[in-house]
Amino acid sequence: MKAYQQMTKEELCTLKEELEKSYQAEKEKGLKLDMSRGKPETAQLDIGMELLDVVNSESDMKAEGGADCRNYGVLDGIPEAKKLMADMMGTTPEHVIVYGNGSLFIMYDSISRSYTHGVLGSTPWYKLDKVKFLCPVPGYDRHFAITERFGIEMITVPMREDGPDMDIVEKLVKEDDSIKGIWCVPLYSNPQGICYSDETVKRFAALKPAAKDFRIYWDNAYVIHHLYEDDQPVLLDIISECEKAGNPDLVYEFASTSKISFAGAGISALASSKANLEDVKKQLTIQTIGFDKLNQLRHVRYYKNLDGMKAHMKKHANIMRPKFEAVLEVLEKELGGLGIANWIKPKGGYFISFDAMEGCAKEIVKKCKEAGVILTNAGATFPYGKDPKDSNIRIAPSFPTAEEMAQAANLFVLCVKLVSVEKLLEAK
Amino acid sequence: MKAYQQMTKEELCTLKEELEKSYQAEKEKGLKLDMSRGKPETAQLDIGMELLDVVNSESDMKAEGGADCRNYGVLDGIPEAKKLMADMMGTTPEHVIVYGNGSLFIMYDSISRSYTHGVLGSTPWYKLDKVKFLCPVPGYDRHFAITERFGIEMITVPMREDGPDMDIVEKLVKEDDSIKGIWCVPLYSNPQGICYSDETVKRFAALKPAAKDFRIYWDNAYVIHHLYEDDQPVLLDIISECEKAGNPDLVYEFASTSKISFAGAGISALASSKANLEDVKKQLTIQTIGFDKLNQLRHVRYYKNLDGMKAHMKKHANIMRPKFEAVLEVLEKELGGLGIANWIKPKGGYFISFDAMEGCAKEIVKKCKEAGVILTNAGATFPYGKDPKDSNIRIAPSFPTAEEMAQAANLFVLCVKLVSVEKLLEAK
Repeated sequence: MKAYQQMTKEELCTLKEELEKSYQAEKEKGLKLDMSRGKPETAQLDIGMELLDVVNSESDMKAEGGADCRNYGVLDGIPEAKKLMADMMGTTPEHVIVYGNGSLFIMYDSISRSYTHGVLGSTPWYKLDKVKFLCPVPGYDRHFAITERFGIEMITVPMREDGPDMDIVEKLVKEDDSIKGIWCVPLYSNPQGICYSDETVKRFAALKPAAKDFRIYWDNAYVIHHLYEDDQPVLLDIISECEKAGNPDLVYEFASTSKISFAGAGISALASSKANLEDVKKQLTIQTIGFDKLNQLRHVRYYKNLDGMKAHMKKHANIMRPKFEAVLEVLEKELGGLGIANWIKPKGGYFISFDAMEGCAKEIVKKCKEAGVILTNAGATFPYGKDPKDSNIRIAPSFPTAEEMAQAANLFVLCVKLVSVEKLLEAK
Repeated sequence: MKAYQQMTKEELCTLKEELEKSYQAEKEKGLKLDMSRGKPETAQLDIGMELLDVVNSESDMKAEGGADCRNYGVLDGIPEAKKLMADMMGTTPEHVIVYGNGSLFIMYDSISRSYTHGVLGSTPWYKLDKVKFLCPVPGYDRHFAITERFGIEMITVPMREDGPDMDIVEKLVKEDDSIKGIWCVPLYSNPQGICYSDETVKRFAALKPAAKDFRIYWDNAYVIHHLYEDDQPVLLDIISECEKAGNPDLVYEFASTSKISFAGAGISALASSKANLEDVKKQLTIQTIGFDKLNQLRHVRYYKNLDGMKAHMKKHANIMRPKFEAVLEVLEKELGGLGIANWIKPKGGYFISFDAMEGCAKEIVKKCKEAGVILTNAGATFPYGKDPKDSNIRIAPSFPTAEEMAQAANLFVLCVKLVSVEKLLEAK
């Protein structure tokens, strides 16, 4: 196939006509598919149903240490749940507080707490003229929504193939004490599926921020969410790297079982230094009498340990992999060599990040929508919903079936082609 | 029995000696009882175990409206859970958001949100020189802890037998626009067990606060937590009373099933006007992808409806009633007519409020502790932990057994007598 940029105006016009016909035909199929959110499909929920049976009316309700999981008490999680979540996150239980049904809440709460009460005794952010956050882009829209809600200025940092551009990160945090944090998804980043290299993690741990209350917001959302059994990147443990670098308090790490057990009915955790956890607990003890220990117990009794969790994740991978491959195959087959798009083949996580030609993303998403396929809004992967190049599109292949994914991908590439041709014609 | 105040110094000295001997004897028994918190006892947890069976691996996971309770979605609660919680709170589902495992979190969140983002577009509280709350006393220590954390000045309002002194409440909120809220436990108040009369509720609904962002924080924690089947006060629905009075946005109402199903593993709810709920949801959608719908489903499938819940509450009452009566019997028998104490006989809730002679509460609690019975700290029922009269003690009879409660109560009255005699002797 000839690269679109090398086509003449006439060739592009002919192509455009063909593509428009195909698009009309696709439209008439009346597709109704949602690729907008990283939502597990039903088959993924079905494989973990026995989790609902392990705590029943006949069960022993005592946690390790003797607490009755049906009653008040135990602010920071039952010991066995702390162990399970610590193992999953690659740290140790004394670094962990187990929370409720999702990690987004912990992240929101961390920002909200810093805003109202500061970090380890620092000035509350509301009292400061300016608070800024670094946002590697493309990134996760829900992260950006939290910082936007608190009026925090977001500064984008480009992603490289091994994580954020650390030269920029190091320079900015060293120079500017109004920079209080950075959003990171270190393993299978949202949306690119990029994994932070050992060097990147070590450079994060060794940061010398001007702001004492700067923290790395390490959203380890896809910590064991691999697609391939024989090709799994290993992420260094940021907590111990920070300790080794003499910066034990530098990081808040977040994780949950939302995409392991049930989305919205899992358990979540914060991992951090002793001092940070003490600071957090000062608030937590006023905020709640404790999280749902029965659900913690359910998770521990069902998975038993990290190996149990990993075995379960293989089942998820077996469901997810064909969908990713279906999309990637269509992308490669239909767009390979056309010079109008780039994408990354992820080894895990929930997304495929797609870069169209500049100025095309919104129009592609719009065209897909008109033909019945919902994608995440163009721009959503950037702070304030504004992709300066209008290029990045996040594809979430998890919810539809593999067959539906192939259909959706075919429509998608058609829209990419059509919008690209239109763009190129504009310039002629 | 002669009233202590009428005794001569000699009589008091003799009595003191006797009491000291008895106290030493009690101490040697080595009691170990906790009456400090409103915590259900094990028998209360045992009666609801089948709640854990109704959602299992064979269950239909769809909520009304079709949402899969195992997946993301449904920010404000599944329809059937909204209905159940609305029925429980005496309102309608459109007034309700169902939250996670406890109502304390909703209350904290309401204050925190008002602090950072204001109420329905009002100035965020952090920007104001002064924010004040009215606190009917004695009251709930965890309410006071929330307002204290946000530097909110707490102004005490005396409780009367039908609720807070409304003359004072009306006057203060009308005059002072820095007063932004009032903490209320309208049914079986914590700790007095007082029920707000119809007139009190109507006067609340008709308040004309100077501050547009003033809200009544209506913690309906004991909404169906009666002790007696044939003697149950009826609380007016504050939501519809506020609507009738033309003040639909005046109230946030909180409730949970913590003391119905399992403490820490229940479901909770906020009830308020449409405008308030919209305002809350603007934040909620950034804060969480949704609460635990499986636990919502469990509660609905187990209780089925409000009648099911009420039937279950009778079982709780049958366990609680003997404990309350054991304590009250000892109080009446041992302290009646001595002129050194007052208490209220509650018809529901979780507490007995006890007023000792002025300046005696701390010493009584200390003496009880030394002999092995833990009470809530004296002062805890007042803002900043400071009871100006050092008189009020909250007794929580739920956790120990009825027999243990009788033992504990006997020690308690002994300590009351001893400390009272010492106090009276000081004055001689």
